[in-house]
Amino acid sequence: MCELLGMSANVPTDICFSFTGFLHRGGGTGPHRDGWGIAFYEEGGYRDFRDPHPSVRSPIARLIRDYPIKSHVVISHIRQANVGQVRLANTHPFVREMWGQPWCYAHNGQLAGWQALPLSFYTPVGDTDSEHAFCWLLGELRRRFPRRPANDVEREGMWRLLHQLCERLRGLGVFNLLLADGDYLYTFCSTKLAHITRRAPFGQASLSDAELAVNFAEHTTPDDIVSVIATEPLTDNEAWERMAPGELLVWRDGTIRARYGRREPEPGAAAGCV
Amino acid sequence: MCELLGMSANVPTDICFSFTGFLHRGGGTGPHRDGWGIAFYEEGGYRDFRDPHPSVRSPIARLIRDYPIKSHVVISHIRQANVGQVRLANTHPFVREMWGQPWCYAHNGQLAGWQALPLSFYTPVGDTDSEHAFCWLLGELRRRFPRRPANDVEREGMWRLLHQLCERLRGLGVFNLLLADGDYLYTFCSTKLAHITRRAPFGQASLSDAELAVNFAEHTTPDDIVSVIATEPLTDNEAWERMAPGELLVWRDGTIRARYGRREPEPGAAAGCV
Repeated sequence: MCELLGMSANVPTDICFSFTGFLHRGGGTGPHRDGWGIAFYEEGGYRDFRDPHPSVRSPIARLIRDYPIKSHVVISHIRQANVGQVRLANTHPFVREMWGQPWCYAHNGQLAGWQALPLSFYTPVGDTDSEHAFCWLLGELRRRFPRRPANDVEREGMWRLLHQLCERLRGLGVFNLLLADGDYLYTFCSTKLAHITRRAPFGQASLSDAELAVNFAEHTTPDDIVSVIATEPLTDNEAWERMAPGELLVWRDGTIRARYGRREPEPGAAAGCV
Repeated sequence: MCELLGMSANVPTDICFSFTGFLHRGGGTGPHRDGWGIAFYEEGGYRDFRDPHPSVRSPIARLIRDYPIKSHVVISHIRQANVGQVRLANTHPFVREMWGQPWCYAHNGQLAGWQALPLSFYTPVGDTDSEHAFCWLLGELRRRFPRRPANDVEREGMWRLLHQLCERLRGLGVFNLLLADGDYLYTFCSTKLAHITRRAPFGQASLSDAELAVNFAEHTTPDDIVSVIATEPLTDNEAWERMAPGELLVWRDGTIRARYGRREPEPGAAAGCV
């Protein structure tokens, strides 16, 4: 299994602390030696850093750990290859432009029968089930919504469709997902995803995977809201909430804006917004 | 004016030497303080590193200079902003996937009336003339060639169309271009581009912009062919060839595979392949 790490925040925030713990799972405390990547959204722009080598020994990973890039939305992935060779083209996160926004995607799990998912606007560069599923999913969104949703009704329609598409992929195997467009972060749980929201009063946190603690009160203002989503909780002294299988969360500025599928409904049924 | 740097090679080659000189133009010997970026194709994959800060002070640029990434095709750009704010979304190179290949683009120059270029498959994320022209150009290629050219005839038809599109953009102002799909590197000259091909017997080269010399014979094998293309020659002891205005070169594995527009023909007329 690969490892996923995501962040949504209402102020540009660096992810160095969480990334330090996460990094150790890439060949350190974890078996995920087959590459890693991290994507940042900054002021409407996007950049990612990817390396097909284990993250614990990657000079690029060290740069990211030591060079604080402040972002509202982050997606990171450490890979343990199952489908597709260990090479750059198969290294998450993947990105495609839709509606003038860079959409970023990382997947944990394995799918069966993914080759039959029909492609339209987007074509994989590599040969993984993950990237094929991404190209299909984004193509389906774009076929139904040729333009960016312009209001709340269209937007919620798009989110419901996204939930249906995720449920269809969950029907093909394990599909834990992080997806983002720069404003929103979407997290879908098939088997394993946990999240935590940090806000005032901020406390101290200590990493499960490395000897490091941080007092968030020293690095934040009272209005900051920062949520972190990961395959497994990254800290050992905080209460992380686990997502339910089939659940889609829509995050913006560190808070959950909509939630679908919490009570394990039939695929396609929405459980409503919060 | 921005600065462009490209490389095409028949063996995976690191560009550290050329990049060291190029880097100095980003706020060192040059006025190009508004961000920089570099893209590498590796084993069918793609990655880029972009920073909206001056390259001479960028920790990411230092990493690229010191961490040799070996590639067949490289595109790099240092920006001096004219259209569009200094921010990540406006930082070259730009990338879009077409036909399952990551197409990478960097532009030097300024265009007039670019807003009227109609868009189809691709939409700009930022607000520069450069990215708009890229989205138009790639969209036009894809409209005429919905699938990747499958043979030499189709491929040469696509190259002729590319030359026509570049000529149309040259009609809007200054349009010096580096474009790549991972196999081929395309260079189009509107006002300024020079190139050099290094092959056995390899000699010594010294940078124009920094105190550094390299003896390529120590770093190469007799079969290596490495071509470098830049806005201005990067070395002061080698014979660089300047491209003609309106000329498109198609590079693969370090050599020129086709050449269009050398004798300043009417826009749209091809001067043939070599």
